[in-house]
Amino acid sequence: MTTLTSSKGKLYLVPAPLDFMCSTQAALNQVMPEGTLQIASTIDHWVCENAKSTRALLKRLAEVHPLKTVLQAQQVTELPRQVHKKGDHVAAVDTSGLLAPALQGHDMGLVSEAGMPAVADPGSSLVRAAHDAGIQVVPLVGPCSLLLALAASGLNGQQFAFIGYLPQDAALRLQRIQALEKHALKTCETQIFIETPYRNEALLTALLSGLHDNTRLCLCSNLSLADMQVQSLRVADWKKKGLVPDKHSPVVFAFGP
Amino acid sequence: MTTLTSSKGKLYLVPAPLDFMCSTQAALNQVMPEGTLQIASTIDHWVCENAKSTRALLKRLAEVHPLKTVLQAQQVTELPRQVHKKGDHVAAVDTSGLLAPALQGHDMGLVSEAGMPAVADPGSSLVRAAHDAGIQVVPLVGPCSLLLALAASGLNGQQFAFIGYLPQDAALRLQRIQALEKHALKTCETQIFIETPYRNEALLTALLSGLHDNTRLCLCSNLSLADMQVQSLRVADWKKKGLVPDKHSPVVFAFGP
Repeated sequence: MTTLTSSKGKLYLVPAPLDFMCSTQAALNQVMPEGTLQIASTIDHWVCENAKSTRALLKRLAEVHPLKTVLQAQQVTELPRQVHKKGDHVAAVDTSGLLAPALQGHDMGLVSEAGMPAVADPGSSLVRAAHDAGIQVVPLVGPCSLLLALAASGLNGQQFAFIGYLPQDAALRLQRIQALEKHALKTCETQIFIETPYRNEALLTALLSGLHDNTRLCLCSNLSLADMQVQSLRVADWKKKGLVPDKHSPVVFAFGP
Repeated sequence: MTTLTSSKGKLYLVPAPLDFMCSTQAALNQVMPEGTLQIASTIDHWVCENAKSTRALLKRLAEVHPLKTVLQAQQVTELPRQVHKKGDHVAAVDTSGLLAPALQGHDMGLVSEAGMPAVADPGSSLVRAAHDAGIQVVPLVGPCSLLLALAASGLNGQQFAFIGYLPQDAALRLQRIQALEKHALKTCETQIFIETPYRNEALLTALLSGLHDNTRLCLCSNLSLADMQVQSLRVADWKKKGLVPDKHSPVVFAFGP
């Protein structure tokens, strides 16, 4: 159990390895700094996307760093359903009730299924609530697929935007791709987005039909893992090589001039 | 010396700790994963922003992980001047000549003064050249101030843009702040930007005068260090509290609805 003090606990943002839904796993200490593992192993109150995968992560953590509180005694609470469905940057979502342990003096951890919590994933409502309640927010260093993909792409890293998901409807998607490319060519801003793995191939097809031949397109998967893939080519070369993305792995897409 | 093989070397993107220009230093293994330190310690050909700070980083690395090649025998080459001044996403910059060691079979490292190379820093021209030369690009996990700031801000992490620097001219800066806020309020896209430390206070003043009272503004400094500061408040509350940013530390600014 966390030692209770008269002051509030902190909200730690704990990154998770990028192997969720992947066929290979990273050794935790290969992709997470000792400082992050050390702090994570002292936390016993968690807020997460999915309790099952959080417990699996804590089990992996226990293998490299003894947990202060045994797994069975850890409190793991999921973010409310509406946050998953609609995102949680809208004012309507109030997750402040989840911070009760921190108000009582317990350090808490926010964790996603992969990567940095509250980035390309829900959780920002909890972070906002922490700031509003005077709870100290401490982001910990760890892997983030968007960032690794951006650096590895060779695209402009001095100006970039993360778009989230493109529309599913084919006509709307093509329209969006062309609007984003027009913006990217004008401003040099790299456009980054993600897709549900089974739609990777359809998205690549749409990108190759919608983008100019000279635009650089990068696809990254299994980042930070042994079977990492980074492919950054002009659209014309993508067409020539006929490469196909894995339909089981999460892929980060990026393009720009 | 790296063992020469018939195949090409890799280009590793090696993150640096975030304490450059800061008064406190991080212990390397607290902010960098063992996997990153291990690989970095085997590299003996570097491309960097600044040779002096790269040698200082290698000295710190040697303290936690024995270097394969002694510091004095490491080859450290700076990116060309024009890259620093104008960025290197423009086609005119050709840094492919710096990759000669990789073509000869040596693994190479690209490193910045702080954080992830080629993100909010030059280096993307080298990464593009590596892709074009068939050299494998491997981004390594480590700290990145933009990412930590975004997660810690409580702002929308499911859609965001990194703007770089705002204009220095007061009128143009105000105009840009208001255009970015209009865009942020319409799209919910978080706006992230940076400033030269001695202009932090002037930028905060401009933000407080240009933004709506209800907009959330976050300032982060010394991320991942013992004296980390994360302040995320509505503009009205920034005005009430009269907080002033440190004029010596690099600050990441972010705002949104």
